[in-house]
Amino acid sequence: MKGFINATIVTPIGKSAVKGTAMGCLTTINNGAVAVSDDGIITYVGDQKAMPACGETVDLGGRVLLPGFVDSHTHAVFGGFRPDEFRMRLEGRSYMDIMNAGGGIQSTVDATRKASADELLHSLDFFIRRMSEAGVTTVEIKSGYGLDTATERKMLEVTAKAKERYAGRIGIESTFLGAHAVPREYAGRTAEYTDLIINEMLPEFRGLASNCDVFCERGVFELDDSRRLMEAARALGYNVKFHADEIVQLGGAELAASLGALSADHLLHVSDEGIRAMAASGTVATCLPPTAFALREPYAPARKMIDAGCAVALATDLNPGSCFSGSIPLTIALACIYMNMSVEETVTALTLNGAAALGIAHRVGTIEPGKEANFAVLAFDSINFLPYYVAMNCVESTYYKGQKIS
Amino acid sequence: MKGFINATIVTPIGKSAVKGTAMGCLTTINNGAVAVSDDGIITYVGDQKAMPACGETVDLGGRVLLPGFVDSHTHAVFGGFRPDEFRMRLEGRSYMDIMNAGGGIQSTVDATRKASADELLHSLDFFIRRMSEAGVTTVEIKSGYGLDTATERKMLEVTAKAKERYAGRIGIESTFLGAHAVPREYAGRTAEYTDLIINEMLPEFRGLASNCDVFCERGVFELDDSRRLMEAARALGYNVKFHADEIVQLGGAELAASLGALSADHLLHVSDEGIRAMAASGTVATCLPPTAFALREPYAPARKMIDAGCAVALATDLNPGSCFSGSIPLTIALACIYMNMSVEETVTALTLNGAAALGIAHRVGTIEPGKEANFAVLAFDSINFLPYYVAMNCVESTYYKGQKIS
Repeated sequence: MKGFINATIVTPIGKSAVKGTAMGCLTTINNGAVAVSDDGIITYVGDQKAMPACGETVDLGGRVLLPGFVDSHTHAVFGGFRPDEFRMRLEGRSYMDIMNAGGGIQSTVDATRKASADELLHSLDFFIRRMSEAGVTTVEIKSGYGLDTATERKMLEVTAKAKERYAGRIGIESTFLGAHAVPREYAGRTAEYTDLIINEMLPEFRGLASNCDVFCERGVFELDDSRRLMEAARALGYNVKFHADEIVQLGGAELAASLGALSADHLLHVSDEGIRAMAASGTVATCLPPTAFALREPYAPARKMIDAGCAVALATDLNPGSCFSGSIPLTIALACIYMNMSVEETVTALTLNGAAALGIAHRVGTIEPGKEANFAVLAFDSINFLPYYVAMNCVESTYYKGQKIS
Repeated sequence: MKGFINATIVTPIGKSAVKGTAMGCLTTINNGAVAVSDDGIITYVGDQKAMPACGETVDLGGRVLLPGFVDSHTHAVFGGFRPDEFRMRLEGRSYMDIMNAGGGIQSTVDATRKASADELLHSLDFFIRRMSEAGVTTVEIKSGYGLDTATERKMLEVTAKAKERYAGRIGIESTFLGAHAVPREYAGRTAEYTDLIINEMLPEFRGLASNCDVFCERGVFELDDSRRLMEAARALGYNVKFHADEIVQLGGAELAASLGALSADHLLHVSDEGIRAMAASGTVATCLPPTAFALREPYAPARKMIDAGCAVALATDLNPGSCFSGSIPLTIALACIYMNMSVEETVTALTLNGAAALGIAHRVGTIEPGKEANFAVLAFDSINFLPYYVAMNCVESTYYKGQKIS
């Protein structure tokens, strides 16, 4: 058994997402202690005077101990980078110019199809190290740059191998996103590609991914294809998740809620009806502010969603196109300074609500007995430093299942 | 002699600031090499085939080698943090509420007066380490939280000691900013406090600071007090610098230019006449976008200033009040995504033009023979990653006078 003492423990409480204004309520234990079993599970949380005897003890000197962050929406497995395309966009070049220069998601699809599984796996090292440094102890990784059965399988197998490779460092959750775009082979035949996903990929990938996601947008996967895809996924036992209402107000949030989706993500243009539906169904509303920042788009209406009773999560959307970032400090800065979220709501959104968006809130996301001992220890004694130390990493050390990994 | 090979060398060229659209011109040497003397001075830059024989050789594998970044505007020496005040501001509380709760610059002045020189010096460790990780090899540190002769001296002495303490890690430039605010002891008697600075502090601090700065703003140091202060400073051999036109359009940029100031900084509300004057005088226009970001203010018109022929520098404004950050990656993201600066202009602004804003462009800020061997080596082979890897640190390693320090 290992003990952490002299901690300022700050955590949400519970095994499902916190909703609405309750999101702003965190429990704080000053002079707190946490005991961790040899297999990395929390066995005690409370006043350090009542702490059970431990072998090794880590004195945190009053620093804040938070649940490790859950980055519940990333596309961290991909081939190729697209810096020149990002530059063209900043220079005001048109979408067609970028496509003609070989840019866009198709360029990542081509590079990912070409890359070996080993290359994809090893390219993760770079990102996992940075996640650990920023206090991330659970990350979701989506497929979706294959858009054919073989490459989607390759991506999911890479994520499965990554789970083993990084087993002592970070928890990885796998999401199948074959419906990320319509591949050029199926241009103009979205329904046929949807059939391919439903009939071939979904049955084959059970066991490789817990979740199924869809890019539900005007001109990509419209509501009807999204619905039948997700109904099929649900019938096969996948949790369902949505990219919803990012570019136009299509009703993706409403559809996600009606299907009992774990989360609807992006939501820049969510309708009031979509907000009400998510609040009622318990579908987590996941905001990805780094992407809006990178694209100079308006931020998702997080304040409005919280006030309407939604559970809001925050994630980075790390991807090689619209938002090659993965910055937790930027995510926090944007939430607190530009989205009018309190620091307590931001912490909840990055921990328990992120876990709920992945269906794993029963085992991560809070500092409670029975949960994994995943901690982000700040360099400071107050969570008010999270927005104050603007876009800087407040995390001094990260523990995964009780072991220091950064 | 030490050599760096297989570098993609990217640098501005010259010993004074680059102005106007020329700011966007960088020299690139593929398969480049740099040789460094034992005392840390660059002796060769060019094709690696013509590289002189070196003892130790570092193979950069095609990665970008830039001049180390120059953060030419910080307030990194201070007592006390103000996270609760930042939170109150985010919650929409008024300036008076914050003052009544003990916030504002006066709280930092009180904490800095109370802190020992050793405490102030050791608190720098935290910041210097982060600067090095981000590729910063030269930093300017201002006094200005003493506002009395004894404490201003203490701050300048701390910075002098820091120069020794970090001599192998980072170059430190010292700026006297006694005119940062009017202390409560002189409330309503700005001219008298200005006299104190002119008659007592300025003569006494020669040798402790190369530069003298003033917070030239409506209701703080107006144009007349700023002018006589800076004329006195100049007469004593200080380089002069200005906090100008941050809150209102007062004409600080015009005054700075008329006095031949090294730089005018902030400039959110600079006038067209001020821009013309800086372009004509060669006064560097220093933008501090993290502060505007943290305060939800508009960004300084960097594009307009560059197009009008100004030399523009970028710096972080690290300070305990308006912008506790110091993030170079955020500075780059804001410049490229929100201020319409090209990546080349951004690199120039963070290197040579930052050096010019401190009067040290003859010895740092470019990769040229005769200059200090201060390098930021990126993890990538193209500077287009600087904006693309949004708000993330692209720097893999940092060299100061030829030695790896991060």
